[in-house]
Amino acid sequence: MIRIGIYGYGNLGRGVENAIKQNSDMQLVAVFSRRDPAAVKINTPGVAVYRTEDAEKMTDKIDVMIICGGSATDLPEQTPALAKLFNVVDSFDTHAKIPEHFDKVDEAARESKKIAMISVGWDPGMFSLNRLYGGAILPDGKDYTFWGKGVSQGHSDAIRRVEGVADGKQYTVPVESALEAVRSGANPELTTREKHTRECFVVAKDGADRAKIEEEIKNMPNYFADYDTTVNFITQEELNANHGGIPHGGFVIRSGKTGANLENSHIIEYRLKLDSNPEFTASVIVCFARAAARMSSEGMSGCKTVFDVPPAYLSAKSGAELRKELL
Amino acid sequence: MIRIGIYGYGNLGRGVENAIKQNSDMQLVAVFSRRDPAAVKINTPGVAVYRTEDAEKMTDKIDVMIICGGSATDLPEQTPALAKLFNVVDSFDTHAKIPEHFDKVDEAARESKKIAMISVGWDPGMFSLNRLYGGAILPDGKDYTFWGKGVSQGHSDAIRRVEGVADGKQYTVPVESALEAVRSGANPELTTREKHTRECFVVAKDGADRAKIEEEIKNMPNYFADYDTTVNFITQEELNANHGGIPHGGFVIRSGKTGANLENSHIIEYRLKLDSNPEFTASVIVCFARAAARMSSEGMSGCKTVFDVPPAYLSAKSGAELRKELL
Repeated sequence: MIRIGIYGYGNLGRGVENAIKQNSDMQLVAVFSRRDPAAVKINTPGVAVYRTEDAEKMTDKIDVMIICGGSATDLPEQTPALAKLFNVVDSFDTHAKIPEHFDKVDEAARESKKIAMISVGWDPGMFSLNRLYGGAILPDGKDYTFWGKGVSQGHSDAIRRVEGVADGKQYTVPVESALEAVRSGANPELTTREKHTRECFVVAKDGADRAKIEEEIKNMPNYFADYDTTVNFITQEELNANHGGIPHGGFVIRSGKTGANLENSHIIEYRLKLDSNPEFTASVIVCFARAAARMSSEGMSGCKTVFDVPPAYLSAKSGAELRKELL
Repeated sequence: MIRIGIYGYGNLGRGVENAIKQNSDMQLVAVFSRRDPAAVKINTPGVAVYRTEDAEKMTDKIDVMIICGGSATDLPEQTPALAKLFNVVDSFDTHAKIPEHFDKVDEAARESKKIAMISVGWDPGMFSLNRLYGGAILPDGKDYTFWGKGVSQGHSDAIRRVEGVADGKQYTVPVESALEAVRSGANPELTTREKHTRECFVVAKDGADRAKIEEEIKNMPNYFADYDTTVNFITQEELNANHGGIPHGGFVIRSGKTGANLENSHIIEYRLKLDSNPEFTASVIVCFARAAARMSSEGMSGCKTVFDVPPAYLSAKSGAELRKELL
């Protein structure tokens, strides 16, 4: 049994809790929260909730700590600190800061001789793996990553900060004609606007100026100005009924050439279509937690990413079973 | 520089030769053939062709030997024999016999302390990897593998053995409605007939009985009887002009559920669309040859499959470059 701790109990933490139940070689042993443990209700009978500061007393009870904090401020502090005590997995997703995060976490994990797996999920994570495999197989080629259709938390937050907006949700939508152009092997150069559109569902406050709200959203720099954006005003009831989920997904496509004169085209396409972004991310994290436990038990240590994990380590099955059933 | 030998120079061997040219850290040093070396013309200036029996004299000149024989009779002999002398990669693709092949090759490679990577390509190979990743992430789910649209060499051969047939080509075609049913998350049970159709292009000999040929193909056990098969009679000129390539591809789809009550569906889809089956297979083999060289230089040995290779080992880029550019 691999004994798991969950550090931070939001959407992702709850997803991890559910995913652990789907893996019979894993067991949730503790949840750590910054909130008052008495106020945190979890879904696993018999498992206690502790304050985050109690984690250090439980190093002998937890094989892998899954850190479910946010990338902006939580993980840059939490992952290096916890890697001094535990094997850890995080889902750090600020792509530009991954090298810096890696170095800090690696130093901590080398010192403690633990495994610290960072940036696990689907992007970074499974999408990164597919960019790596695709580029290694087809060196003469081009990578394309499309996101959606799915809810962007950051863009939904941006909408809700606009004056006169009561609530809102934003979907990132890949442009079908751009996808088709990529799949054709034509290796098109695509602008930001050509790749994705942004679809907003907005609940306006009573008496708010809708034209002004729409204008402000569509021209918001960084978030919307570079995209074709549509704004739909709906009621709070409609928003709750039809836009309550957190779906997401996307595509990683490698388009490359082979042959004596590069005369043959090949398309490798990896697609995700997810009902729940945090639950899928949690499911990826949990199988990499299995790998972290195995790598640690074999004496490895330091910071690792999805690129460093032999795929067989992710599965509960033996090497012989995998070769017989899946190869 | 990783020094590569090619053992067997057919379609796959030529594909490997082309792929080596696309990877600047690799160098072809020798081609081995059962034919008279003087009669074998290769595409790389300055590289010599040797008889297969000369390979054993060149163990100090080759870092990885890529074995390009067939799975039926060549590889079961060649891979264990060559693994005693070299790091090797093969594309053994008789799924049912992989465990047996693994054991024989593993024994040889452990004794010689070499790395022997077997069953590398796309199925087995990249498709297997996607079955493994998908099942590890979504344990409550179902795998679907579809092949095509593409040329099946075995089925084309079967057509050409029918009396009255001068030439022929067979395409395996996935059924679009079955793919859509799988993508819907409905987890359908699909029969052989529901998953693929078979499309045949046949050149009849002068005066042959076409109705009889069609009848015989459609009712051929194992090959066609379990499928909806269409037979199109065309001229040799049409066959040469329109059906000269060796395209292939297919889909691996994992459909799974997550959530406290398994209420959320997720679809992971991996798709290949290949102009040249042997060239793509060769491209996969060549990046796994890089991994074999690295694993060997780190002191590892024994039989390995795609499941055992940390993805970073496939790329010519450093860990830091990969994290910065692709993660």
